[in-house]
Amino acid sequence: MEDMKDWRRTHYSEEISPEMEGSEVVVAGWIHETRDLGGVAFVVLRDRAGKIQVTIPKKKVDEELAEKIISQVRETVVMVRGTVQKDERAPGNFELIPNDLKILSKSKTPLPMDVSGKVDAELDTRLNSRYMDLRKPEIGAVFKIRSKTLTEVRNYLENQGFLEITTPKMVATATEGGTDLFPISYFEKEAFLNQSPQLFKQMMMASGLDKVYEIGPIFRAEEHDTRRHLNESISIDVEQAFSDHNDVMQLLEDMIQHITEKVKKDCGKELQTLNHDLEIPETPFERVKYEEAIELAGEKGVDVVWGDDLPTPGEKAVGEEIGTYYYITEWPSEIKPFYALPEPENKEITRAFDLMHPRFELSSGAQRVHQIDLLEKRMTTQGLAPENFEFYIDSFKYGMPPHAGWGVGAERLLMALTGKENIREVTLFPRDRNRLTP
Amino acid sequence: MEDMKDWRRTHYSEEISPEMEGSEVVVAGWIHETRDLGGVAFVVLRDRAGKIQVTIPKKKVDEELAEKIISQVRETVVMVRGTVQKDERAPGNFELIPNDLKILSKSKTPLPMDVSGKVDAELDTRLNSRYMDLRKPEIGAVFKIRSKTLTEVRNYLENQGFLEITTPKMVATATEGGTDLFPISYFEKEAFLNQSPQLFKQMMMASGLDKVYEIGPIFRAEEHDTRRHLNESISIDVEQAFSDHNDVMQLLEDMIQHITEKVKKDCGKELQTLNHDLEIPETPFERVKYEEAIELAGEKGVDVVWGDDLPTPGEKAVGEEIGTYYYITEWPSEIKPFYALPEPENKEITRAFDLMHPRFELSSGAQRVHQIDLLEKRMTTQGLAPENFEFYIDSFKYGMPPHAGWGVGAERLLMALTGKENIREVTLFPRDRNRLTP
Repeated sequence: MEDMKDWRRTHYSEEISPEMEGSEVVVAGWIHETRDLGGVAFVVLRDRAGKIQVTIPKKKVDEELAEKIISQVRETVVMVRGTVQKDERAPGNFELIPNDLKILSKSKTPLPMDVSGKVDAELDTRLNSRYMDLRKPEIGAVFKIRSKTLTEVRNYLENQGFLEITTPKMVATATEGGTDLFPISYFEKEAFLNQSPQLFKQMMMASGLDKVYEIGPIFRAEEHDTRRHLNESISIDVEQAFSDHNDVMQLLEDMIQHITEKVKKDCGKELQTLNHDLEIPETPFERVKYEEAIELAGEKGVDVVWGDDLPTPGEKAVGEEIGTYYYITEWPSEIKPFYALPEPENKEITRAFDLMHPRFELSSGAQRVHQIDLLEKRMTTQGLAPENFEFYIDSFKYGMPPHAGWGVGAERLLMALTGKENIREVTLFPRDRNRLTP
Repeated sequence: MEDMKDWRRTHYSEEISPEMEGSEVVVAGWIHETRDLGGVAFVVLRDRAGKIQVTIPKKKVDEELAEKIISQVRETVVMVRGTVQKDERAPGNFELIPNDLKILSKSKTPLPMDVSGKVDAELDTRLNSRYMDLRKPEIGAVFKIRSKTLTEVRNYLENQGFLEITTPKMVATATEGGTDLFPISYFEKEAFLNQSPQLFKQMMMASGLDKVYEIGPIFRAEEHDTRRHLNESISIDVEQAFSDHNDVMQLLEDMIQHITEKVKKDCGKELQTLNHDLEIPETPFERVKYEEAIELAGEKGVDVVWGDDLPTPGEKAVGEEIGTYYYITEWPSEIKPFYALPEPENKEITRAFDLMHPRFELSSGAQRVHQIDLLEKRMTTQGLAPENFEFYIDSFKYGMPPHAGWGVGAERLLMALTGKENIREVTLFPRDRNRLTP
């Protein structure tokens, strides 16, 4: 193998055009395939942006160089210094005639999986060799869209005046007192991985920072193993003071619209690779009251008793009816967490909402309880001991403004934007009941 | 307490100017102080952006309203609807004459700590009531600079073509086989919190994504309790293919310069509040070879044997000499991790570097070993069993380009940008040997 020395890539494949005919460039990537037709050979080089055809007319190219490039096995990493030449038959309408070559890393054979796109591998095989799986354009495209999406979420929120915060992932108390926690040993103490930044972002409402967001990992030790759940995932969390549920619902739907527009505009190539047609949703999203949602589900044969959660088949029934993003509002107080504010005029229901995608739940949010007495009462009613939450409750004592917020599952959002049906498809290294590596 | 109903803040304090005389605005915040002079009373309201003087000339303001506003205890949360009036004696050269008021959340007394800036509290007291501590402008300023810094890091990297990735925090294997790990129970299995995204970001170099970054939490169960260490912190990680150590050192120094410029430009008010004069560093940063650094330390009375790490007093001695950011390069192979590439012509030293701030280490990086044989050899030499790292080593088999990268401690970077001496000052909810709450 050779040393790169002072060679550096001058262009990605997509940055070269036929108009550059005669220029010398350096390209770098993986040998995708080689075809030796005798008088001429073609080596297709693959980089992050696409493919480049290196054409070796044997009479014109140095014999040793030609042999060196043609003899490499697939997936070997090379740098090629070559001259751009127009050719309408080649991808991008140009080819490179090689002048020099460096072999940087030879591939072993056989490959653990096919990356030419000719053979489909099982998801498990793909996840075991994620580095290899990502070499396929339709897999790389998902993670380019992911990066763009997170950037646009931040851009949107920062333009709205939100400050980014980071809250701790190792905590002493469960956010909602649940049992679905991963225990850690923290020196002599018992601790847990945080399920949600909920309590911390609410505490920030008492700080005067006013509008905060966090994009970070959350951990849930749920036993179930579905296509829509992970045990470690990324949550986009927002909390806003001097606001009610309607304010943050508007913020959320505007954000969804914004990022969809941006992804559609800036990731056109990736969406095409995925063969996914992204529709920009109209706002405001439809508001369906919980009562209406269970009625609608009932009409479709899914019976739900008032006060029960809407089961997956019920979500699907309503989702099919609506066909795009929608909110479910006015949830019963007893099934929403203690921090969801009951409607002052009708305490049976709360100012909590879920944002639904036709295929799954995307976000939960609410105006929060900001009155300390009510907070302690709701905690107690739900079987939680306020004394375990002293650090949180204290922040309600010395001036806590009304506030509201939501959390969006980043992977769910990516599923909506890419059309993927399995949450593992939009996660580089998923963690589930059975998978802890790579 | 009253309901906000359809009242919403129309302006932050800094958005109001004397030119708006006669306009009606709604402001929202905390009562900072109240002075009743008899014929006139002043109530200073504090919001995220600063302070507003509400002036109550008793002859002109409705008596009940005047009484209601004046009688509130400090730190009570209110919204005031009022008319802007020029007044050169007031902060911002305007005052508000109140027309209406909502009391949203009354504060209890006494406060757990002073927020008027008149009494200094101990760090522990402050961290116990972080929501309260943040009400002080000099504390809020740190976290505004933090948010800006992370935004500019991302802007810089994305403009350079980096894609954001997320790697798992729950892992089966220690990154560097160290003992400083927090164990988790992951269903039936033993797992750990990840010390660093090192192995994952390197695997991405075999994926063709080419340039990746991650800003996320890392966890180290180190026993020591210093002003420069936390057990949970945020790492800014970068990895770049087809690059060597010099390429990523240039990237890093340019990034530091970029964010310093942006923070200086856009956080002028916050820097002033902190009374911190931020100098924009010149690039390139000085490169000091390890050999030179220990010699320099020796001249200052700190003896270091070749092959030993530079101890804190040694770092300080060199830092004082240089006075600004600098790199230490050409570290001995035996004290740098297995993934640091030994110099091909002199295997005693590596292509590893540390970026130093005069007061502490800010970043470690290197060109990495990309040759599988050398990688396994270095692992074995350092007492690690390659078979425990199969998922990682596999990614070197089928074409792994040369690559290099670094990790910057976000908190250390913030210490450099804000002039803070204790890492807890730049962390909302620090985690250390003794602190697991809030």
